[in-house]
Amino acid sequence: MDGSSSVDILISEVGPRDGLQSISTILDADRKCQWIQAEAAAGVREIEVGSFVSPKLLPQLADTAEVVAFARQIPGLTVAVLVPNLRGALGALAAGAHKLTLPLSVSETHSLKNVNRTHLQMLDEARGIAAAIRELPATDRPKFEGGLSTAFGCTLEGQISERKVVELAVALIEAGCDEVGLSDTTGYGNPRQVKALTQAIWREIGEERLTGIHLHNTRGQGLANVMAALDVGLTTIDASLGGMGGCPFAPGASGNIVTEDLVYLLEAMGLRTGIDLNQLLAVRRKVDQWLPAKDMHGFVAHAGLPRGFSSPTLTPGAGNPATAQ
Amino acid sequence: MDGSSSVDILISEVGPRDGLQSISTILDADRKCQWIQAEAAAGVREIEVGSFVSPKLLPQLADTAEVVAFARQIPGLTVAVLVPNLRGALGALAAGAHKLTLPLSVSETHSLKNVNRTHLQMLDEARGIAAAIRELPATDRPKFEGGLSTAFGCTLEGQISERKVVELAVALIEAGCDEVGLSDTTGYGNPRQVKALTQAIWREIGEERLTGIHLHNTRGQGLANVMAALDVGLTTIDASLGGMGGCPFAPGASGNIVTEDLVYLLEAMGLRTGIDLNQLLAVRRKVDQWLPAKDMHGFVAHAGLPRGFSSPTLTPGAGNPATAQ
Repeated sequence: MDGSSSVDILISEVGPRDGLQSISTILDADRKCQWIQAEAAAGVREIEVGSFVSPKLLPQLADTAEVVAFARQIPGLTVAVLVPNLRGALGALAAGAHKLTLPLSVSETHSLKNVNRTHLQMLDEARGIAAAIRELPATDRPKFEGGLSTAFGCTLEGQISERKVVELAVALIEAGCDEVGLSDTTGYGNPRQVKALTQAIWREIGEERLTGIHLHNTRGQGLANVMAALDVGLTTIDASLGGMGGCPFAPGASGNIVTEDLVYLLEAMGLRTGIDLNQLLAVRRKVDQWLPAKDMHGFVAHAGLPRGFSSPTLTPGAGNPATAQ
Repeated sequence: MDGSSSVDILISEVGPRDGLQSISTILDADRKCQWIQAEAAAGVREIEVGSFVSPKLLPQLADTAEVVAFARQIPGLTVAVLVPNLRGALGALAAGAHKLTLPLSVSETHSLKNVNRTHLQMLDEARGIAAAIRELPATDRPKFEGGLSTAFGCTLEGQISERKVVELAVALIEAGCDEVGLSDTTGYGNPRQVKALTQAIWREIGEERLTGIHLHNTRGQGLANVMAALDVGLTTIDASLGGMGGCPFAPGASGNIVTEDLVYLLEAMGLRTGIDLNQLLAVRRKVDQWLPAKDMHGFVAHAGLPRGFSSPTLTPGAGNPATAQ
């Protein structure tokens, strides 16, 4: 269940949750499961398969419990879900998800607009979820992450102070989260900020409690920010097939990092993702057929792989001579 | 005439050359001059304004001499041009360009296809150009750059050996170039390669003879590669307004780095480009009106600047508190 073994960077695919919640097309559970199974077969080790949120709010994700039940059967796959509150978390625990993420928006204005909760109310939810997890037998307990949304700035509040982000990271850990994640909900982040914010949080809660980052590509800075994430030493990076998604509640925000383009970046540099890029591109083509063309983005799928390109994954046991240093 | 003073990173705008040579719309000299003047007014200090190439091959650039004559009058602007051979260089010298770039494709297959010249023939051209420049009075001599095209790989030959790139860099300097530039014509480059190739060339010809890089965004890796360029210490980065252009002779290659997105990246990190981003976005809107929508790309122009965003350029004398470390 630990998706990070034998890879240098763990890519956490968020398309079935963050992607599908942002578009109007509804994929049925069968197609979602086909998608998840195909990406897992391509080597993706962690997938956020849905969200336990009100079906009235996001009918696209109403079948998340069914999808979790399917995805749990895939060997080696960490099945992650988003939960907006304790009620959602109880659904996730009942379904048997391996990882729960509770997003907490560092911008309280955004938090109120997004989930109608203050910071204190969200921390109460976190405590309730941690307590519910502790009631499970030790072997059944999922990982519980607090996601620091709008950590890099907010379309409503503008700049967000680093101090505020660090305070809430500490508060989430104290409330019982196993770890926190950094999220550039609005696509405001820049590489220096990625490093500075990561290091500031690490100083307070330790490196093992912040390993992942969720970056948006709203201003085309996604992979530049990934470079900073790699440089500072983060090891889990969220991405979405075809760049689908982004936060629909933050005006002007759109566009996740494109999984295919990210895998290409990492593998070209000789960093192991465990993902077969050709297989991943085939999954994209499959999912692309189910959705309107406007919903999928990215470059590698259109440009193709370089002539003679090989990655450690594609040629097992061998590094890429073009990139070996 | 030294565009690099008082900035941390010199952005060399290549849209009027690399952009316009790749699209079917022909802008008349008056519009090109309006574009160049507006970008210079926004703070861009170096612009590649055209190419002295056969008007039969690229009618879009047939008026380059006229454009150079205009651009030369703009205070503080370095007027760069591309020259495919000695003949073109003589035209550039007569027009009074400040900087000449002779592209030499490290892939000899690409060189033959692109300009029908072997490496030895291109080095002869370089020697001829250097000799022609030496005949000018010292104060009138332009800078002469050898551009190492397809340095990161070739759509025809595939991988390009680092040794070959270094050899040709040395040969260009020996032929009389003041400096060389690295060019990812095909969008094959990755960040590790940017660093490794730069350092390998520096070891042979010294850091002062390689300061700039021309990156394509064909696979969405442009700004990730910029991060590596900044990290290794390159100080001049080519970009194109709206990402227009790319090499039309390399199948599958398209898309320069988007100037607006690059300026945003650098200024957000607190690196001075000297460019007023709001003014630059206004230039883009102006040029955009003259061209079909499909020719302009990029993110920042669509997403807008973050709420409360300020850059050192926009607030003279002050750094950006959000990014200061």
